[in-house]
Formats: sequence, structure tokens, C-alpha cells
Amino acid sequence: MGHHRPVTLHSGRPSTTSTPNGGDVDLNADVGESFGRWQLGDDAALLPHLTSANVACGFHAGDPLTLRRTCELAVEHGVVIGAQVGYRDLAGFGRRDIDIDAEDLEADVLYQLGALDGIARVAGSAVRYVKPHGALYHAVNQRAHKARAVLRAVVAFGDARGEAIPVLGLPGSQFLRFAEEAGLPAVGEGFADRAYRSDGGLVPRSSPGALLTDPAEAAAQAVRLATSDGVRSLCVHGDSPGAAALAAAVREGLSSAGITVAPFAGP
Amino acid sequence: MGHHRPVTLHSGRPSTTSTPNGGDVDLNADVGESFGRWQLGDDAALLPHLTSANVACGFHAGDPLTLRRTCELAVEHGVVIGAQVGYRDLAGFGRRDIDIDAEDLEADVLYQLGALDGIARVAGSAVRYVKPHGALYHAVNQRAHKARAVLRAVVAFGDARGEAIPVLGLPGSQFLRFAEEAGLPAVGEGFADRAYRSDGGLVPRSSPGALLTDPAEAAAQAVRLATSDGVRSLCVHGDSPGAAALAAAVREGLSSAGITVAPFAGP
Amino acid sequence: MGHHRPVTLHSGRPSTTSTPNGGDVDLNADVGESFGRWQLGDDAALLPHLTSANVACGFHAGDPLTLRRTCELAVEHGVVIGAQVGYRDLAGFGRRDIDIDAEDLEADVLYQLGALDGIARVAGSAVRYVKPHGALYHAVNQRAHKARAVLRAVVAFGDARGEAIPVLGLPGSQFLRFAEEAGLPAVGEGFADRAYRSDGGLVPRSSPGALLTDPAEAAAQAVRLATSDGVRSLCVHGDSPGAAALAAAVREGLSSAGITVAPFAGP
Amino acid sequence: MGHHRPVTLHSGRPSTTSTPNGGDVDLNADVGESFGRWQLGDDAALLPHLTSANVACGFHAGDPLTLRRTCELAVEHGVVIGAQVGYRDLAGFGRRDIDIDAEDLEADVLYQLGALDGIARVAGSAVRYVKPHGALYHAVNQRAHKARAVLRAVVAFGDARGEAIPVLGLPGSQFLRFAEEAGLPAVGEGFADRAYRSDGGLVPRSSPGALLTDPAEAAAQAVRLATSDGVRSLCVHGDSPGAAALAAAVREGLSSAGITVAPFAGP
Repeated sequence: MGHHRPVTLHSGRPSTTSTPNGGDVDLNADVGESFGRWQLGDDAALLPHLTSANVACGFHAGDPLTLRRTCELAVEHGVVIGAQVGYRDLAGFGRRDIDIDAEDLEADVLYQLGALDGIARVAGSAVRYVKPHGALYHAVNQRAHKARAVLRAVVAFGDARGEAIPVLGLPGSQFLRFAEEAGLPAVGEGFADRAYRSDGGLVPRSSPGALLTDPAEAAAQAVRLATSDGVRSLCVHGDSPGAAALAAAVREGLSSAGITVAPFAGP
Repeated sequence: MGHHRPVTLHSGRPSTTSTPNGGDVDLNADVGESFGRWQLGDDAALLPHLTSANVACGFHAGDPLTLRRTCELAVEHGVVIGAQVGYRDLAGFGRRDIDIDAEDLEADVLYQLGALDGIARVAGSAVRYVKPHGALYHAVNQRAHKARAVLRAVVAFGDARGEAIPVLGLPGSQFLRFAEEAGLPAVGEGFADRAYRSDGGLVPRSSPGALLTDPAEAAAQAVRLATSDGVRSLCVHGDSPGAAALAAAVREGLSSAGITVAPFAGP
Repeated sequence: MGHHRPVTLHSGRPSTTSTPNGGDVDLNADVGESFGRWQLGDDAALLPHLTSANVACGFHAGDPLTLRRTCELAVEHGVVIGAQVGYRDLAGFGRRDIDIDAEDLEADVLYQLGALDGIARVAGSAVRYVKPHGALYHAVNQRAHKARAVLRAVVAFGDARGEAIPVLGLPGSQFLRFAEEAGLPAVGEGFADRAYRSDGGLVPRSSPGALLTDPAEAAAQAVRLATSDGVRSLCVHGDSPGAAALAAAVREGLSSAGITVAPFAGP
Repeated sequence: MGHHRPVTLHSGRPSTTSTPNGGDVDLNADVGESFGRWQLGDDAALLPHLTSANVACGFHAGDPLTLRRTCELAVEHGVVIGAQVGYRDLAGFGRRDIDIDAEDLEADVLYQLGALDGIARVAGSAVRYVKPHGALYHAVNQRAHKARAVLRAVVAFGDARGEAIPVLGLPGSQFLRFAEEAGLPAVGEGFADRAYRSDGGLVPRSSPGALLTDPAEAAAQAVRLATSDGVRSLCVHGDSPGAAALAAAVREGLSSAGITVAPFAGP
């Protein structure tokens, strides 16, 4: 990480990535979040710039045909498919925390993993990693029983096919710590287009300036994050106008800085 | 089939079963159709009497935890798991026909197959056959594009794992004919507890006497159907009170008549 | 209507409007069709150009907060609120026909009318007319039991407050005929930005040129339709880019032709 | 309240009922909670024993036809209709707390109030009171912004028809206190068939003995509660087997103790 900016993402903690950052970084974004008549983002424009696609699984967004087309696009562009699992809440887009029982959450995640995996396999790939979406992304760091429920589902799903499926999350977080304890590869991510506070936390979405919309600024932050400990993947937001241009700028910025952009998971 | 009752299920047509009826018959029923707080049927009592379980997939019924528990029960009792795929219509329980586009239907079926398969695999089995539910069961015989859409999904899902997944349907029906053309094992089924008309069709549900509620009567009809051409599986209804007792009587009746009750698909 | 274009919408049939077209015309569009995170159309830009707003009711689109804001905007701009009732099918946006029982459909329509009316009343207005949405718009002309079910709901809802609530539909259609028989004001509408066939029918959406996107062309068609028998309201589409500009052009065109744009229903 | 049992429901606090308990008590239960194919409770058997019916509004349970039939039954038996508003969560039956924005919650409640009111009016009555359901029942006492959001909706809905609509809740609770501050009649309720702790709180559902299933025991507790300060209504649970018998026993017990059973709200 550059010494000119004090972004200490998990100071003092051991890296949560099971593999040390060897100079390359993954680029992920949420895709497949349209639903029926409602389009969200421009996946066809965004996907070519990514190395990993967090595809929605139908609970917070993503009708089955959208998921299928998104997986086909990902395969076409050589982008690795991950499952963006969320709460069952279309009206809230998975952004409202739900006080769900652990065994219901575990089953909900299993259901979503299988649904997307079937579609991904028919498209010629498979679910290669898991990233909780929206309120669940935060809940797995705030509520241990939710983290463990999600992870039990990922472990069980992977066991049934003889693999340990990686999970994406905040560097140094409870979720990634529990994942490693459960034997899963834990991949820390940074946010190229979200503003960070000086303590390494994210500026809340509701605050002014929370989103970096200037591609150059996002690219610069991406380079800083990519060289941080614990960051093996960079997330860009897919649902803002100009998302594809921003992703392209981030990717170009990383290349210019000599950082290889490559997926963390196999195809 | 006894000559005293003119139930000719598919007279003159070649058998749609890919394997000739060798004196044994399968016993299937719909299970996993509870949803959250709402219980339907008594799966724990019914499952031990079945050889094949048509497990709901969440679109017409079946929350993920229900599906998981149902699959676990099925595995525990050595019952083969099939996917009961339906329209996305909880309010209508999948019993209302929906004029859905073929590619949406295909993706909806793929999604359901994957979701249930993931849960079934974690339970120690897999989706071993497919049976359309409710209005879709009839639509695949009335609308060719719907039959083909469902079958494309089954073929694609099976291809991705190197198997041809059997489908269940009416003997001699368009759906089974198309299935065979698509290279899928096509399994004809009779209804032990539904009244048949003299032309071999079912008495509509809305008519008096449509459902046989007397276990002895259902058992007798089961024996007749089990020895019919084209019938390799018998369906009993799982959502009526006394479903388990009726299934037990049917199974006992078949055994007494020297008919082996065995699943048509592998475990 | 100009003699150079043979759009005869209901030649030879008596007008279905209960009030003869007195030289003014209403301008309606579908609004309130966003759902949670998913935006559709730009209601704030479109509404000021309308005299009647077909507000979604939550079954095919429209979360409650969207409905509330839409009703508040309508009141602010003096636009009359109508209920755009549809099938319960978010995934299909109400555009897939559903073979629903008449009594379920009647109850579904009642539910939607009440839901929107409560929100409209709190915003300072009320539901002043009803327009079926999507597949239901067509179904009420193809299936008599569906037309009657919708109308029974409208009649019952109106009776409970001592009013006869107008319905919008195709001029000369079964739906409007049944509505008049049921004592409801029946308002025929034309489509300013949909291409008509020479027989007066609409060019199907799937055909090239089905939508008129040129504001001048739509405005010219609006003027022709506004002077047709049986047309008391003109519909413009709200979900296409440029919808607001097109509506403005239509309104301007009508004014230039000396046609007053005014709602058919009271505020 | 009898001195032999230390159930102090709101010791030291002023009564939250706006009208002092004049020796009569209301009897309420949740009804209308079936959904499509899934039946819950036996409303036809239970309703005749009630004076107030908490009818579901479609978000946690209750399809529109169920709501309509339930309202018709209520009117037939002279039972007052209340709106049992809940979170939008069919899979969780409204029993999982959802971290919803205040303005969304307010709009969701308005939507539900209108939907049920329309149906109730067509049945010859109207929504006469409001009772939050499940997780929302508790949330309005734990989160001030949720209580205020629900109450703003009730006030706005009532204002639009010139009435102050009563709300039901726990005696001495934040929700009832805020309701009174907002000018709404606040009605405290006790639970005839839930076990109370010695501090006046309810034994959690998950604990053994949480539900009193013995009709005589429930009747005895009902008499004690009915003579407590702050209790103007008694709730019995409608979804347990034997709910009707228990309600009958409670009503009989109250009558025998000289307590008149009468609704708190007008018909």
C-alpha cells in the first residue's frame, strides 16, 4: 500500500487471505440484478471489464432468464461466476436486514447456490465463489450465527462436489475469519469506487461523497487498494450509470501500475 | 389390467416407457409443499410408503428449509428424489396456467432444478427425475412450446452432469413423446386415487367422485393400473388427510397382488 | 379523423362512451411502475403533461412508497388518479395471461382498488377510474368471465362509496360494453404512440414500427384519434425514454388543433 | 385482578386506555391468515366466538379472496373488523423483524389498511382498528421510528375519512403511549392463552408452557386479565387446533364471572 495515504484496512491483524497477494488483483462487480421488466445496470457493457461476476441468485434480484443470460455473457468473456446470495426481499433489494433463523438462512443460501450453479453449469461454468449481498454482507460481520449459517451452506454445497468454495468479504472481518476456520478460501476485497474513512472503514452510502464517480479517482484508489495487505479483489459498482467506463478506467489504471488483473478463482 | 374395467390408457399407441413394464411399479407422491408457517400434508408419515418423492421446488410451494428437510427424510427412507417443477405462483399453488414465454419457462425450470438438486446433493442424493406440477403438468400436453421448453431445461441440466434425467407424465402423452424424441427416459404414470373415465381420461377434480378416498378402492385401482401398458409409476395424493394410510393400503395391495414396488430411477 | 388515413376504430358500432365526445380529450399514461430499487419511467417528468394517471397497484408493479409518491405528484399537478389493476405477477410485469378463477380475480381487483384508493385519499384525492393493465387489458375482451369479474369488483367498490367509477378500454370492446351494462361510465381510449393497422387494430408490440417514437408523428396521430368517435382519452407510454417529451408534443399538438385536453373524470 | 396471582401488567403507570375499563372486555383473534392452497386455522368455527377480528392484510398472510370471505363471515357474525398489518414476508409469516425504512413502513401500512378497508366496506363494514402483527407487534415497542411510522399511517388513513382509528397493543407500551400522543384511542390487550411471567411479561413462545392449551386455564386467566387495569381486549390464538373451543371456553368463563364481552370499537 502506498505510504502517502493511510488506508489501513486491517492494521495489526494477520491477513485473512489464504494466499498472499502476489501482485495481481481480481476485479468484481454485481451483475444479473435485473428482474423481469426492470433493468438494472448494463451487464453487457460491464462484464468484459471484469474478472469475477457476482451474479444475483433470485432472492434479492435476478429472474432466471436474466441469470442465464448473465452467466452466458460471463462465460463468453471468460469471467468467473460467483453467487451473490441475499435475503429473500425483492421489495427491499436485499438491503434491509431480516432477523431470520439460522437454519432458514442456511437453507435459503443453499437454495440460491444450487439455482445459480445449475444455470452456470448449463452455460459452461459453475459457481466458483460466494459473496453475500447487501444487508447480508454486513450481517455476517455483525451476527456470528448468520456468518456461520452462510458458511455452513457454502461448505455443504462445496463438500457435495468435493471443493472448497471461496468466499469474498471485508479484509480482516469476522466472516472471513470464520470462513478460514471452516476451511474455505477467504478473499478480502476493497471498493474502488467507495470512499474510505481514515480508519479504513467505508464512508456510509448515505453520506455525501460516499461514491467515487470520477474514473481517474477510482482508478487511483484501486491501485492503492490492490497493493494493500489483505486485498485480493476489487469491487466496482455495476448499477451506476458509467459503471462500465469506470471499470475500464480501473482496469487500465491497474495495468498501467504494473498490476495484473486476474481472477482469484478458477474458471 | 382387469378385463372387467375398460381403462384403456393409451390404446393402439406404442408404450411411451423406454423400459418395458417388468412386473414392478413405482409409487410417487407430491411432497415438500409446505411454505413457511403453512403446513401441507404430512410428509413424515407419507414418505416411508413411497419409492419416489416429487419434491416441490419453491415456485408453486416449498420454502428452502422445507425442501431440505423433505430431501433428508427421503434419503433416510431410501426414497428417490424428483423435481416437481411448476409455475412461479405461490398464490395459485401453480394450478393456474400462465402464458409464459418459452425461454422464460425454460430458465424457470432450470432454476428450480438446480435449486432442488443442490439441496438434494447436500442431503446425500440428487434430482433423479422431473415431474411438472399442476397447471404445467397439463400445459405440457396442450402447448407444444411449453413441453419443449421444459424438456430443453431437463436435457440441458442432465447434459451438464452427463445424464439423461427421466420425466414423469401421462402415458401416451405429447410430453412423454417429445421427451423420448429428446432422448430422455419417459415414464408413464397412473393415479391410484383419482377416478378414471371409461375412455381412460381422468374425472375432473371439480366433479363428484373425482378422488377415491377409500383405501381399498385405491389399492384395487392401483393393481389394475400397475399391470397396464405404459404405467411404470403410480401417483397417490399427498395433501389429503389420510394420504399416508391410503399410500400404505396401495402398497400393501400391490404386494398382495405380487407386484414389486420399486423406484424407476436410481437412488 | 382525417380522411387520408382509414383508422376506423369501431365503424358502425354505437359509441361506447356514455358521454359524447365534445371536442376535448383526456391524456393518460401508466405511472407508478417502479418497484423498490428498480426505477421505470420518469414519472416526475411525465406527470405534468397528463390529465389522468394510471397508477400501478402493486400486483404487476409499484411498491407502496412509489404509489404514494406518485399519487402525491399527481395531486400536485392536478392529474386525476386511476387504478391500473393487473395480475399478481411481478416477474412477468402483468403481461402474461393467468388463468385465474373469476372470484379470485374479483377479489384481487378489489384488493388493489382499496390499496391504491387509501394511498390516493391520504394524498388528497381518490381512485377516480380503473384501467386493466397488460395481459388483463386484453383478457377482459377475450374472456367474458374475466371482464365480468373485474367489473363486479369496480361496481362493488364504487357502490360502497356511492359512485359509479369509470373504466378505460378499447372503443367498441366487450369490456366497455359490459361496463355500460353494469352501469359504469365506459371511456374509450386511443394510443397516440402505437401504430394502428388499417382495420383499426393495433400493430402488435413485437412487430417493427409498433411504437411511434417521433413526437411529431405521435402528435399528428393524437389529433386524428381525438376527433374519432368513441375516443375520449389518449394513452401515451410512460416507460420509454423520451416519454415526457412525447407527451408534451402530443399535448401541444392537440392544443394547436384546438382540442382541449381535459380529464374525463372528476378530481 | 385477583390478588392470588401477581400479574402486574403495568404497575405504577397510568392506564393507557383512553376509556376506563367499565367491566366489559373485547375478545380478539387473528383470522384471515390462509394463503391460496394453504389453510391456517378454522375461521368459520372461531369467528362466532369473537367480538373483534384481526384480519390479515396480505403482506404476512391472507390472499384477497380469503380476506373477502373472512370479512363477510365477520359481518355475518357481527364481529368488528381490524387490520392486522405486518411486514411483507410471506415466507417468514411476518414473524422476522425487517430493518425497513420508516417511510417504506408507513407506506406499507397505508397500502394494507386501504386494501383491507376496501374489502371490508364491500362486505358491509370497514377497518375499525389496527393491530400490528408478529415481529412488527414487538418492533413498535422496541424501535420508536417504527412505532411512529405505523401510527402516522393510521392517523393519515383515519384523517382521510374523518375518524381516529384505535390501535391494539400491550398495556403500558411505547406503542400505545405514542398512539395516545397522536390522538388515537389506545387499547391494551391481554393474552388469554399465553403464560405470563411474574413480572407481567409474556413467557417466550420458545419456552415450554408458553401456550395455555387447557380451555379452563385460559378461561380463568381471561377473567383475571379482564379485570386488570389497562386491559380492554383479550386475545386468543386462532391458529392452534382447538382454538374455537378455547375461545368458547374463554367467552363462557367471562360471562360466568359477570363480565360482558363486547367490542371496543363500533361496527
